Amino acid sequence: MYSEQGKYPIEVCISPLSWPLFQKEGAVVIVTDIFRATTSMVAAFQNRVKSIIPVAEVAESIAYKEKGYIVSGEREGKTLECAEFGNSPFNFMEPRLQGKTVVMNTTNGTQALKMVKDGNNLVGIGAFTNRDAICNWAMEQQRPIIIFCAGWKNRFSLEDTLFAGAAVQYILENGKGDFHTMCDSAISSADLWQLSQSNPRAYIEKAAHRHRLKKMGLDDILDYSMQLNTCQCVPVLKGEEIVDSKA
Amino acid sequence: MYSEQGKYPIEVCISPLSWPLFQKEGAVVIVTDIFRATTSMVAAFQNRVKSIIPVAEVAESIAYKEKGYIVSGEREGKTLECAEFGNSPFNFMEPRLQGKTVVMNTTNGTQALKMVKDGNNLVGIGAFTNRDAICNWAMEQQRPIIIFCAGWKNRFSLEDTLFAGAAVQYILENGKGDFHTMCDSAISSADLWQLSQSNPRAYIEKAAHRHRLKKMGLDDILDYSMQLNTCQCVPVLKGEEIVDSKA
Repeated sequence: MYSEQGKYPIEVCISPLSWPLFQKEGAVVIVTDIFRATTSMVAAFQNRVKSIIPVAEVAESIAYKEKGYIVSGEREGKTLECAEFGNSPFNFMEPRLQGKTVVMNTTNGTQALKMVKDGNNLVGIGAFTNRDAICNWAMEQQRPIIIFCAGWKNRFSLEDTLFAGAAVQYILENGKGDFHTMCDSAISSADLWQLSQSNPRAYIEKAAHRHRLKKMGLDDILDYSMQLNTCQCVPVLKGEEIVDSKA
Repeated sequence: MYSEQGKYPIEVCISPLSWPLFQKEGAVVIVTDIFRATTSMVAAFQNRVKSIIPVAEVAESIAYKEKGYIVSGEREGKTLECAEFGNSPFNFMEPRLQGKTVVMNTTNGTQALKMVKDGNNLVGIGAFTNRDAICNWAMEQQRPIIIFCAGWKNRFSLEDTLFAGAAVQYILENGKGDFHTMCDSAISSADLWQLSQSNPRAYIEKAAHRHRLKKMGLDDILDYSMQLNTCQCVPVLKGEEIVDSKA
């Protein structure tokens, strides 16, 4: 699994469309969808939910609800009729959710998780809020690392790319020389992070999705979502569920 | 064709894979493949070739050669058997090519040109060496502008993205307020250019393709390719051929 330089490669997949180009056999994949799926998942595990079941179809959410599960989800900023609450990270901070399984309906985030799932892969959930924790876990696996940006409708997304850069930088600086990159999108992401890290919240003002959120009145999450390392949980995919590998 | 803000949008397509996501009806598309197709095309028109016919298949090159055309092209750094010379920009600077048509065999570059060609589009050829000239032409058309990065085997490429950023910055600064961007890849590209513009040649040292070129002994073109505005030609697609719109 070692590359020719005797180090594990770090790569960044900047859009789901690019995923088929990657050598992902046995890799660690960190999936990110900053606004809002993965930031909300991290918030949920920080609040000690037991697990999250990510689903993409409304029919799936309804089926889980009928079995008695707590269901969250929204479309275009509106909470789904079958859901108790929407996908804001703030919704996942309620104490009553501790120890519970939540079925979370997301579009880009769930699609991303389905794409990267493979018998040989380890899949983690990354956000600015758990950057160090998820990267430390990824490095411990001693495998190639791919940061997978869920994007928005397959488009390149500034906030996801910025997180990828924050992860690349952290891994290169803390990987004890075990990791390297020859991936242009990893290099670019890290440079964009370098440029913005003194104030990522201000930098993200120009992101397209930030404007979409504002239009839908969902931009109350920006300050929270752009904070580094407020959470220490390490959500990972285990079968069909996401659990905290540190719990 | 005006966007909601009453300005023409500028977007960056960072990989051919993303092309289907773009609204390209009636747009100006600037295709770039810095190492080496578009830099060589610009060098050829600066040397006053009459036209370039871009082809992707070796069989096409052979057919043109049999008709008496001058044929250039290479695969993996080796000049094609049917070709007189390879794809280095230096090969296109010979005085004997002036006034002639050259059939140029490229892979990523030709594929890109075929993808973007559409009855409603105007297609120009961009490189660092003709940045201002091609951008001025693009702005004169008063249409939405898309910078199309040919990349390398559909991958994100640092040098093409950097050119895209250089073009976005120039258009926003010189477009007299007629242009704007809400495209995250355009914003990111422009920021990377901002970061590197004091010495793009040094910045590109870390690009993956730069290492590929070095391995093949083709990196003698780096200094030349990274220079801004050494050429004033404006190569554009006209039917199956590329011609200089200023000639």
